[in-house]
Amino acid sequence: MTVTISYSYHQQLLSSSGTAIQLPRNKVINMNVIRCCSSLVSNPVLRPELSIRVATRLIPHPKKVDKGGEDAFFVSGYSGGVMAVADGVSGWAEKDVDPAQFSRELMRKASSLVDDEEVNYDPRILVRKAHAATSSTGSATVIVSMLDNNGILKIANVGDCGLRVIRKGQIIFSTFPQEHYFDCPYQLSSEAVSQTYLDATVTSIDSVKGDIIVMGSDGLFDNVFDHEIVSAIKEHKDVEQTAKVLADLAYKHSVDFYYDSPFSIEARNRGLDVPWWKKALGQKLTGGKMDDITVIVGEVVSN
Amino acid sequence: MTVTISYSYHQQLLSSSGTAIQLPRNKVINMNVIRCCSSLVSNPVLRPELSIRVATRLIPHPKKVDKGGEDAFFVSGYSGGVMAVADGVSGWAEKDVDPAQFSRELMRKASSLVDDEEVNYDPRILVRKAHAATSSTGSATVIVSMLDNNGILKIANVGDCGLRVIRKGQIIFSTFPQEHYFDCPYQLSSEAVSQTYLDATVTSIDSVKGDIIVMGSDGLFDNVFDHEIVSAIKEHKDVEQTAKVLADLAYKHSVDFYYDSPFSIEARNRGLDVPWWKKALGQKLTGGKMDDITVIVGEVVSN
Repeated sequence: MTVTISYSYHQQLLSSSGTAIQLPRNKVINMNVIRCCSSLVSNPVLRPELSIRVATRLIPHPKKVDKGGEDAFFVSGYSGGVMAVADGVSGWAEKDVDPAQFSRELMRKASSLVDDEEVNYDPRILVRKAHAATSSTGSATVIVSMLDNNGILKIANVGDCGLRVIRKGQIIFSTFPQEHYFDCPYQLSSEAVSQTYLDATVTSIDSVKGDIIVMGSDGLFDNVFDHEIVSAIKEHKDVEQTAKVLADLAYKHSVDFYYDSPFSIEARNRGLDVPWWKKALGQKLTGGKMDDITVIVGEVVSN
Repeated sequence: MTVTISYSYHQQLLSSSGTAIQLPRNKVINMNVIRCCSSLVSNPVLRPELSIRVATRLIPHPKKVDKGGEDAFFVSGYSGGVMAVADGVSGWAEKDVDPAQFSRELMRKASSLVDDEEVNYDPRILVRKAHAATSSTGSATVIVSMLDNNGILKIANVGDCGLRVIRKGQIIFSTFPQEHYFDCPYQLSSEAVSQTYLDATVTSIDSVKGDIIVMGSDGLFDNVFDHEIVSAIKEHKDVEQTAKVLADLAYKHSVDFYYDSPFSIEARNRGLDVPWWKKALGQKLTGGKMDDITVIVGEVVSN
C-alpha cells in the first residue's frame, strides 16, 4: 500500500513503514492495480483491471500560506485507489484552536485505515473509524472516494467538499454540498453536536477507463464553474497539468473581487447582496471566495 | 410482484398474471417491503426495511394528446421498488414510424424482466435484456432505478431522462444527461449504430427513510428548475400532490414562449439565440420546451 498525505504545497509520501519522503508538488502516482473479481459471474460487463493515475495541488488561503492552510488530503494506491479531502472549519481560530489540526489528524487517521478489514472498501466506514480515532479539537468537512475491486468508485461526503466525474467531455456524476444554511456546511467535529458518518451522502458510480475524477475542497468548486472544469480537461490531457490549471484558476478567481463566481451567484440566489444604495448604482455582490484550494485530478486507467 | 405500466393519462396495473386493470391518474402504490440482508454483518449502519411509495403523472405533448404522447414508464413493487421512464425519439415520425412504439415496448419488456434472475437488481442488465427483447422500430432515451435489498437505489441512465434525490430539503443526488450534441441525447435504438447498455451511466445512492426521488423525462427537467422541485417537495408533503404540481408546472412552462426555462438557458449557453436584429431590440431566446412530460415521485418509507 502506498499513501500520499499532504497539508500544503509540500507532499509527503508515507511508505508502509511510515517513513516520510518529500515529493515535488503535483507528483503523479500510478496506483495499484485491481483484479477482476467473482461478481463478473453474474455481470456480463467485462471490467478491465482499473486503477487511478492521480495528480494533486493545494494552494493555501493567501493569509494562511505560512502554516500551509487548513485543508488536508491524501491519496492511496490501496485497491483501485483512495482519495480524500478534509477542510478544517476556520471558525475554530476564534476559540484559539488551530483549524488545521482536526482536518490533518482526520486525514492521517483515515490514511492509516484504508486497508482496515472492517472498512472493507466502504468509504462511510472509513469516515466513521477515522472520526472516532481523531482526538484533536476542531471540525472539518470531508469527502472520501474509493475505487473497489469491481471498478466501482464509492464516495462518502459530509459537507461541501466535492467530486465530479467527466466521461467523453461531459460531467456524468457530481456530489452535492450538504449545509445547515448558506456557507455553513455539514461537518465532523470533536463536539458531540456535530454530524457523523451517518449524515454522509453515500453514492457510487461504475467507472470506465478514461473517466476523469476531479475532487476538491469548496475552495475549488466555489471559484470554478463545472464548465470550466470540463474545458480544462479537454485542453490538458495530462492529470498533472489539469490539476495545476484548475488550482491556479480557482486561486485567480478567489482573489478577484469583481469575478462573478459560483460562490457569489449562489450568495445572491440566497438573498445576499450589496446594500441598496450600491444596487441603485448598478452594483451587485461579486467576487471569488478566498479559501484554501485543494484539487485532486484522477484518471481511470487500465493496466 | 406488482407492476404498473403507463403510456398516457391512463395507467394500467398489470398483475403478475398479466391482467390489465385501469387505475385512476396518479394512483399511489405502496410497494413491497424489502428485508434486511446479511451485508449488515460488515456494515454497522442499521437499515430498516425500505420501500418506495410512488405517484406518477404523464402529460402528453399538446399536439400528441390523442395518441397519448411518446413517453412510457412503469413502476413495480419488486424488491424495494423499480421505476423506469423511456422517451421515444420523435424524429422517427419523419420516417412514418410511430415514435411511441419503441418506448412502449421497451417499458413493457423491462417491466416483465424486473424479477429475472440474470438481472439480479442490476438496472444496467435490465436495460440490456429489455433492449434485446424489443423488436419495434424506433429509439428512446431510458432511465431505470431499482431499490435493492440493501436499501441502495441503483440507476442506469441512457440519454436525458433524469432522477433527483432530495433529503432534508436539499438535492443530494442527480443524474446528468448524456448527449451527442445539444438536444440530441444518447438513445437505445432498433438500429445497430445506437448506444447500448454499455453506454449507460450507472450510479447508486444509499437511501434512507424520508428520501424523495423525483424521476422523469426531459419534459420535466427542461421546464422545471431543481430549486422548483425542492420547493414543490417542501410545500406538498404528499407524493401524489407533488407529482401533480410538478407535472402541471412543467406543462405551464412548456407552453410559455416567454418563460426563461432550463432548456432556453442551456440553448443560449450553447450559442443558440434569436437573430441579431431581435437581439438589438433587447430580445433573447426564451420559452419552455413543448414535450411529453412524465413525472414519478417516490418517497422512501420504512415498514
